[in-house]
Amino acid sequence: MTDFLDSIKKSVRAIEAYHLKERQYRIKLNQNENPHDLPAWLKREILEEAATLNWNRYPHFDNDRLKSALAHYLDVAKERILLGNGSNELLQILTHAVLSEGRRLLIVQPTFTVYQQLARVAGAELIELDFAKDWSFPVDDIVDRIKKTHPHLTILCAPNSPTGADLPEEALEEIVSAACGLVLADEAYHEFSGRDYIPLQKNHRNLIVTRTFSKAMGLAGLRIGYMLADPGLIVQINKGKLPYNLNIFSELVACKLIAHQDLVNSCAREIIGERQRVSRALAALEQVRVFPSASNFLMIETPLPGKVLFEDVYSTGILIRDISGYHPRLTNALRISIGTTSENDALLDVMGSRLK
Amino acid sequence: MTDFLDSIKKSVRAIEAYHLKERQYRIKLNQNENPHDLPAWLKREILEEAATLNWNRYPHFDNDRLKSALAHYLDVAKERILLGNGSNELLQILTHAVLSEGRRLLIVQPTFTVYQQLARVAGAELIELDFAKDWSFPVDDIVDRIKKTHPHLTILCAPNSPTGADLPEEALEEIVSAACGLVLADEAYHEFSGRDYIPLQKNHRNLIVTRTFSKAMGLAGLRIGYMLADPGLIVQINKGKLPYNLNIFSELVACKLIAHQDLVNSCAREIIGERQRVSRALAALEQVRVFPSASNFLMIETPLPGKVLFEDVYSTGILIRDISGYHPRLTNALRISIGTTSENDALLDVMGSRLK
Repeated sequence: MTDFLDSIKKSVRAIEAYHLKERQYRIKLNQNENPHDLPAWLKREILEEAATLNWNRYPHFDNDRLKSALAHYLDVAKERILLGNGSNELLQILTHAVLSEGRRLLIVQPTFTVYQQLARVAGAELIELDFAKDWSFPVDDIVDRIKKTHPHLTILCAPNSPTGADLPEEALEEIVSAACGLVLADEAYHEFSGRDYIPLQKNHRNLIVTRTFSKAMGLAGLRIGYMLADPGLIVQINKGKLPYNLNIFSELVACKLIAHQDLVNSCAREIIGERQRVSRALAALEQVRVFPSASNFLMIETPLPGKVLFEDVYSTGILIRDISGYHPRLTNALRISIGTTSENDALLDVMGSRLK
Repeated sequence: MTDFLDSIKKSVRAIEAYHLKERQYRIKLNQNENPHDLPAWLKREILEEAATLNWNRYPHFDNDRLKSALAHYLDVAKERILLGNGSNELLQILTHAVLSEGRRLLIVQPTFTVYQQLARVAGAELIELDFAKDWSFPVDDIVDRIKKTHPHLTILCAPNSPTGADLPEEALEEIVSAACGLVLADEAYHEFSGRDYIPLQKNHRNLIVTRTFSKAMGLAGLRIGYMLADPGLIVQINKGKLPYNLNIFSELVACKLIAHQDLVNSCAREIIGERQRVSRALAALEQVRVFPSASNFLMIETPLPGKVLFEDVYSTGILIRDISGYHPRLTNALRISIGTTSENDALLDVMGSRLK
């Protein structure tokens, strides 16, 4: 080593950091957040309890309060659950437990950027498939490639971001059955799809599911996610998890929200309804193609370069997501989160005035 | 692969998870926490502001509010700072950026367990030195072994846990000068030692420092840590950090506490005073040997097996730390955190009655 920076692994030096430019906004439709904050009465109830906690003490070793609440809510054994500082952290722990140089991760592009970032930090080989022409999951291709290359891990974002593609339970089962390695279904958006992959785990011990409190649950600011898997697998993955990864405040909020699941459900129903309305309204514009979405966002394509339309929409104070640089097939694409009714109306006004 | 568990790396399958058994207690002196929670008025002020935050929105991409506050407080450039979900997370990110099979980590045993755990998950080679006979840092040994084995990373907990050993600035400089790899000084307890390694970074770009809000700052439950390093190094290490790793509530609390640093300083002074008092009182017991500590805990040795004395003290409701299984030299050792004056009095009563 001639320079202190040479101590950093080559696989890390070769990549760029994940980055999102911060922008001011009037309406925020760029991160697939729930547009509704918790109601003020629930926040108050939570903050009153937060005042009574010992902030100077480490969290319970296993965050047992949240783990028990989740186990009861999902009707699964506690031994099947791993809690994380967002599901991001659980993806990180999993990749470091499974991937290193000479090991393989299979993903379908374009998808959530963090998967490839983690594989590259680990120095693993990346096997990248393309979504089908109509943007559906290329199930036969995935099965075929798994059989040929034996990836140690396959990660599927389902529904996928940024495309919105749905993955039916039977399709996932086909994939999981073909894999001798592990398959992670990232169900970040599952409340909007109606899918539930947990029952598949009964017959497929290599299927791992992650979920998050950041989307339908409306707690993106508090970083809470969880993983569900075979207890033997959880024991292994847990070895790379550092103690006290979930803070006492986020744990408290998650517990309180589980006890008020009706709020989340009615919110998810509203967003699904708005997704249908916005989708129809955009599709009615001659220059806009809207792709099917099982999620809380829509991918659209127009005759304009994504970057140009993004900046044009942003000039009105509405922040959506420019995904044109994510994949060669997305040059003219944008991703739009579903907001409140009035936020969506504002977006439709702007799109209507730009794209007739 | 014949079994789905074979997808887990061998280096991970070979180790055990970090574990700490949860116990009920009357007095808690086992995790080197600050015994004082934030004052009620400050908690109230924080909770009022927390009510106004958007819990449904992701944190600012760079946690800019806290980064700016820290940069100002420490008088360092923002580009030198990386924020973490506890300094634990930063150790994790650093090891995955530097270590993998065929790469080497040097540590001095016994020390904080997480270092070796992370190296093993990464599949790296562990070079373990022993503390000197009097439990001081074996500086010459460290320099010698660094020159011979060229470790990619050396991690020193300074002051060390569980021994309390102090590492003077000049000694660290000798070590850092000898290293062509990176050296991390984990300054978790620096407020109790009076040491400050940050000025050394000016001439030694391979020196990384981590600090935490979990000890003197009294926020163990909220998981906040930071890393200080050369900006070029921060760029590299940051590539393995996932976005939004620090939640909005913990960020808010850390900012508020920095603005009330006087509280922390007076608390640290009180704990240092109590450490001296407890140390003298324990040393006055004929059967107790107390080791010098630059931290907020004391390591002691008695004629009894650590496990036996630990359980005996615990039978009175006082939870200290049994470290007898951590290292062959610690069979008769215990670690005792410094608590409030009355908690320390209770501990001294029990020890006095057991060990005359």
